[in-house]
Formats: sequence, C-alpha cells, structure tokens
Amino acid sequence: MPLRVEILNTGSELLLGQVTNTHLASIAQALFPLGLRVQFQTCVDDGEPIRPALQAAFSRCDVLIVTGGLGPTSDDVTRDVTAELLDLPLRHDPVVMQAIEERFARRGLTVTGRIQRQAQVPAGAEVLPNPNGTAPGLYVKTDQSPFLFLLPGPPRELLPMLHNEVIPRLHTLLTDATPHECKVYRLAGIGESQVEDLVGAQLEAINGLELGYCARAGEVDLRIIGTPAVLEFADRIVQKALGDRIFSADGSNLESVVVNLLRDRNCTLALAESCTGGFLAHRVTNVPGASSVLDCGLVTYSNESKTRLLQVSETLLAEHGAVSGQVARAMVEGLLHTTPCDFAISVTGVAGPGGGTEEKPVGTVYIGLGRRGKEARVARHQFVTDRETFKAMTTQTALEMLRQDLLKG
Amino acid sequence: MPLRVEILNTGSELLLGQVTNTHLASIAQALFPLGLRVQFQTCVDDGEPIRPALQAAFSRCDVLIVTGGLGPTSDDVTRDVTAELLDLPLRHDPVVMQAIEERFARRGLTVTGRIQRQAQVPAGAEVLPNPNGTAPGLYVKTDQSPFLFLLPGPPRELLPMLHNEVIPRLHTLLTDATPHECKVYRLAGIGESQVEDLVGAQLEAINGLELGYCARAGEVDLRIIGTPAVLEFADRIVQKALGDRIFSADGSNLESVVVNLLRDRNCTLALAESCTGGFLAHRVTNVPGASSVLDCGLVTYSNESKTRLLQVSETLLAEHGAVSGQVARAMVEGLLHTTPCDFAISVTGVAGPGGGTEEKPVGTVYIGLGRRGKEARVARHQFVTDRETFKAMTTQTALEMLRQDLLKG
Repeated sequence: MPLRVEILNTGSELLLGQVTNTHLASIAQALFPLGLRVQFQTCVDDGEPIRPALQAAFSRCDVLIVTGGLGPTSDDVTRDVTAELLDLPLRHDPVVMQAIEERFARRGLTVTGRIQRQAQVPAGAEVLPNPNGTAPGLYVKTDQSPFLFLLPGPPRELLPMLHNEVIPRLHTLLTDATPHECKVYRLAGIGESQVEDLVGAQLEAINGLELGYCARAGEVDLRIIGTPAVLEFADRIVQKALGDRIFSADGSNLESVVVNLLRDRNCTLALAESCTGGFLAHRVTNVPGASSVLDCGLVTYSNESKTRLLQVSETLLAEHGAVSGQVARAMVEGLLHTTPCDFAISVTGVAGPGGGTEEKPVGTVYIGLGRRGKEARVARHQFVTDRETFKAMTTQTALEMLRQDLLKG
Repeated sequence: MPLRVEILNTGSELLLGQVTNTHLASIAQALFPLGLRVQFQTCVDDGEPIRPALQAAFSRCDVLIVTGGLGPTSDDVTRDVTAELLDLPLRHDPVVMQAIEERFARRGLTVTGRIQRQAQVPAGAEVLPNPNGTAPGLYVKTDQSPFLFLLPGPPRELLPMLHNEVIPRLHTLLTDATPHECKVYRLAGIGESQVEDLVGAQLEAINGLELGYCARAGEVDLRIIGTPAVLEFADRIVQKALGDRIFSADGSNLESVVVNLLRDRNCTLALAESCTGGFLAHRVTNVPGASSVLDCGLVTYSNESKTRLLQVSETLLAEHGAVSGQVARAMVEGLLHTTPCDFAISVTGVAGPGGGTEEKPVGTVYIGLGRRGKEARVARHQFVTDRETFKAMTTQTALEMLRQDLLKG
C-alpha cells in the first residue's frame, strides 16, 4: 500500500495570484524517484484557514507537507496552529536561535523580537536546518497525525531543505520494494492529437501501463508509468512510432539537449535575437556548462544595432523591413562573419502587442539557421499569442531547427 | 455575502510536477478587480479522481472554475463526468464541430475521431468559444450545482477565454456595490522583517485593514486590503515610512518601472551580460514598448567576445579575471563607447554550479552601471543559490541600481 502524500500550500499571495505556486511541481518531482506520488494538493489563505485545512488533511493522508507560514511576520501561524492542534507545547530552541543570530551577524543586521518567534519549536519535533534563511523547517511525528513536514515558503529556502532533509527522512519510511517508474517523452514539431493517433491505441492495449499527454508551448509531452518491464515494452513502440520527433526521454529540456549535442561535436554557437529579446540566450545559458558552446548572444533590438553588430546593410533593412526573411538571413551571415562559431541562429519578428502590419501581422517571425560552409536556411512562422508565450514558442522552434540540423551529422 | 469561489485544477502533469500550475495565479488576478477572491484551490489527477473532487466542491462554493480535461485524449474526462454527475445528456454541437473543422482546415490537418469528442456539449450548457484551440469551454448553470465554468488546460487557450467569456459572465452575478480594494507595494533593497519593523505596528492598528508580506528573489511585497477609505489612510503611512524603497504600488514589475522611467526621460539603454546570459535583456524586452529605450543587449559569454564586442583588453582579462570589478567597469565603458546609449549596465559573475574559486566563490557577481558623462559605478554581491534564482536576484539588483540612479534626476 503506497503512502498517501498530500501537499498543503499556505499563502494569501498564492490565492490572490500575486505569486505562482511552484512548490507542488518541485516537491512532486523530488518525491517521484522514491515511488511516491502526490495524490492531492490544496491551497489556503494565511492565518486562520490553515486550521481546518490541516485538520482535514490529517485524516486523509500518511505524509503531509505544509509550505509557508513559518516566517517572522504576524500572518505566519503554521507553527503555532500545528502545535495547538496536536497539543504540543512550544519550546525555545537555543541552537536555532544561535543559527539565526550568526546569520544576522554575517549580514551586519541585528535580531529583532519578531525574528525570535522562529526559534520556537513544538515539543518532540525535529528541527530541519535552513542554511538559506532564518526559519527552520520542522518534522513532526505523533500518533494522531500523518508524518508532518513544515517547510518555509520561499523556494530558495524550501528546495535545499526538501532535498537535504525531507527526502532522506521519507526514504526511511518506505517499505515497497519495486516502485513504478515514469518515463516522459518530450516532442517538438508535432501536435498532441497526432501523437495519440500514432501511439495511443497500441499503448492503451498494454496491461498495467498508465498513459498521459500534455501540450505545452511548442512541445507535447507523452508520459507512461508502470513497472520497469512494462515500460521497456512500451518504449519500443514509442521509439518506433515517434523516432526523431522525441527530443528527450530523460526529462531534459530542449536547450540542454542542444547544448549537449553541440558539446559532443565540439561545436560553438552564436545567437542574434530581435523580438525574443535575449530569451534564447537565457534558455541556452540556463544549461550548466553552456559556456563551452556559446560564444555570444546579440540582442539587436534597434535597426542601427543590427547594422553595427551584424553588418546588416541599411539598404536591406529599408527595402525589406527588419522583420523579413532577407534580414534573418543577413543576421545569420553577419554572425558567421564576425564570430568564429560553427552555428548561428537569428530571430526577427513582431512579438506584439504593437507593431503589426497587414503583410506582417503580430506573431510573424522569421528564424534563420546558419552552419559554417553551408547555405543559411530561413523559416517563417506565425505564433498568435501573448508576448511571453510568443518568446517561448519561437525559441522552442529555433532550438528544434538546430537540433534537427545537428542530427543530420 | 460575497460569492465563494473555488478552483479545481485537473491534470496528472501538475501532481507529477511536470508542469507548474499557473492557472490559480492567472484566474485569481482576473477575479480580484470584481471583488472576488479565490477561497480554496485543489488539484487532482486526470481521470476518475475528478469525480469526488467535483462532488466535494459542489457543496462548498458558489462559483467553481475547473481547468483541464477537455482535450481530445482518453484521459480527458471532465466534460463527461460533469454531465453524468448533473444528469445532463450530452449532445453533438454542429457549431462547435464547424469551428473545429475550420481550424483544422486552416492548418491543413484532417479531423480525426478523437477530436470530435470535443464537440459534445452537456444539455443546457453555454459554449464558450475557443479561438486558440479545438476544445471549447463550457458554462453550466443548474439548480443542484454552483455556477460552473469548465475551461481548457493550456494557458494560451484558457487565458483569452477567461478574460473574454468568464469575467463578463461573473460580472452579471455580482450584487455587492463596494468591493474591497487591494494594494501591493513592491520593494527592492530591503528585507521582509525590516519592512514589518518600519510599518507593521502602525498598519496593524488600523481597523478593517488586512495585511500581508511576501519575500521573493530580490524583492519584498507588502499587501494591504480594505475599503478605499481605509487604504488611503494606510497608504500615507506606507509612503512616509518606505518612500523610495517602493518601486511600484500598481503591480508593475521592476523592469516595467525602469523602462518607463527611461522612456519618460527620453533615455536609451545598452546591456552587456556574462553570467546572467541574456536574462536581463529578456526581462527588459518583456515590457511592451521596450524597443524605444533598448538599443542592444550583448551576451558576451566568452572572453574573446568581451574583447571583440566590448573592447575589454586582453591584458585586463588576464590580470584580474573575467569576474572582477575592473572587467565590469570596462564592459560598461565599452558599451558607452560603441553605442549611442545614455545608460549602460554590465554583469559578470559565477552563476555556478562550477567555476568558483576561493577568492571568487560561486555566487560572486559584479554589476557595473554607467551613465554617459559620469564615472561608472561597480557593486559586488554574493548570491549563493541555484542558477536561475541567481539570475533573478542579480538582474533585480542591477535594475534597482539603475532605478535609484534615474530617481536622482
């Protein structure tokens, strides 16, 4: 019988929509390799609503992970309400207090009365140290509640605590010997229903296989869950039907795959972006080790910078406009001319909301791909959406163009 | 008595952590101006778990917004389960079918059997058109359920439908004449407990004021909620105590504030980034109209590109290393020399996980700020965290340096 895991996120900023809840995704990703899945997640306001939410969750799950409400301010009540519900007196913990004082001293700050609340610990609870903030986490084990982890809200504090403190403790609770595995195929350049048409019927016929699809900007994810033997069988079907459309089957994102392909081939890359405004360079440089393949990225927003940095001629800009296949090609050629790189990508388009014309409406984008010694290629696309999704879809398409080119050898 | 609003997010990709749930934040933001707040949010797996979750929500709220499970694949069961629970027969809708067929024809695709499921509509339900995908939304009004909105999962389909279809319908349900208002002060360069020390006691003493704090990467948000009169009173206290630390009080993010300040002053900006890899340019270009202030952004990842594009001397790089105050200064000077811009920002540091030394450990970063005709300034910071949070904190600090400089005149 697998452990029933539940997450309770507290924080009015989440229910007001001022902050996006990233905790569910982070925690779920960390639990999966243990064979644990989150079965239920709830989000409530700070303060009193935490009480009934905790009570309801206590009766429903074996492991409860609560995020938020451990800070120094008056709306942080998770610690107090938990102690009250479980009838555990709060004690002052001198070790926690010392860590807080040392942290403040290093930053040249003095400890105020509010901060001291964070050194209160419910009797019997284990303190989970927080090297990235003042509020420690708490691990509470009682007879009348699930295994209870109280974690701080800021992701930069929660994430290290999750990996260093929570996961090892959950590991000791597990008895199940053969957890299921999950495999996610990430695909680009193909639609969700096309994917199901190609593999759905064959996969649904497999006993004990759980199947799911998810459409994202410029991407479809196909997810299968089952025992290792079942997954191996399903994998052959998927690989045969979808082949090169799969850019990763190990969770890697497209930018990691592309950076690794370039590194394996000892190749370098230069980028020139207009409408994506640095998002392509940002994605590439999010990959650790990107510095060995990326020479430079140029965000040539003004026409003048396209001429200055990429030698795009003023005549060409005047004749065809900055958003044109001719300029995308000239940007790629400029990169290959001014850098020593093997590959070059250029992007020019109309992200919107303004700037569209009848001939080139908002969402029009030209992507250029250059490879030293070969003719540059340019593709035109139309992504009618908001500014940020436009950037996501355009950069995804550009990276996939490069990946397909790299696969050819 | 305000309407009780609840959100039910369906999708195994959410509980598996493969996709971050952005729906709660988007929907909450859209509802708030109507005086509506989300009181409760739950997330469950695709398929059967939707049934008990719907039943529980039916008894708890006045308005229920369900996301996901309307697609063409076999795990999409929201429409069918809703119809079954409410005893509403499903009918084939020829208008929906025609819209689907037209959409497919435009893209040169043929309609498959799976897709046709999306033209099934529960009797009595209103169809909410989906110009960005095949699955329409549904608005179901019955005596035995809350007002029920079924919306598609992909954000690029859900968001336009939310604003164009859901919000106007919710508006007609409202009777309350004086909704509360919410004001969020966004602050940089100050910690959460410092903010509470400066304003907490005075604000807590105000009758009818709801108060909240939220710490984010390089930012603290102070939130107050109350009637317009109460907010006006509280606003004077906040403005007096926190003054210039507040970069916005209308929800604007720091990049928008900086772009608008530059535009008001008719000033232009150039960027040179090493360790932030284009994220600074990405943030600036996310602001509509950024093209009138941003000339260019250079992602000078290699030493050679720092020399080629920014005229940073090889001697300087060899003597002090790329991560140094001297190089940050030279990068800014190079930008001002090669571009016509009024302001220049440079960033060079060690994002990690590799590349740290004893003298310059992972997290070390130098930020340079240049203003034409003035001496460049360089600040050193230490942000020990993951690669993406490092980028967020560094760019936030750089933008705040520029904002403070712009405030001086």
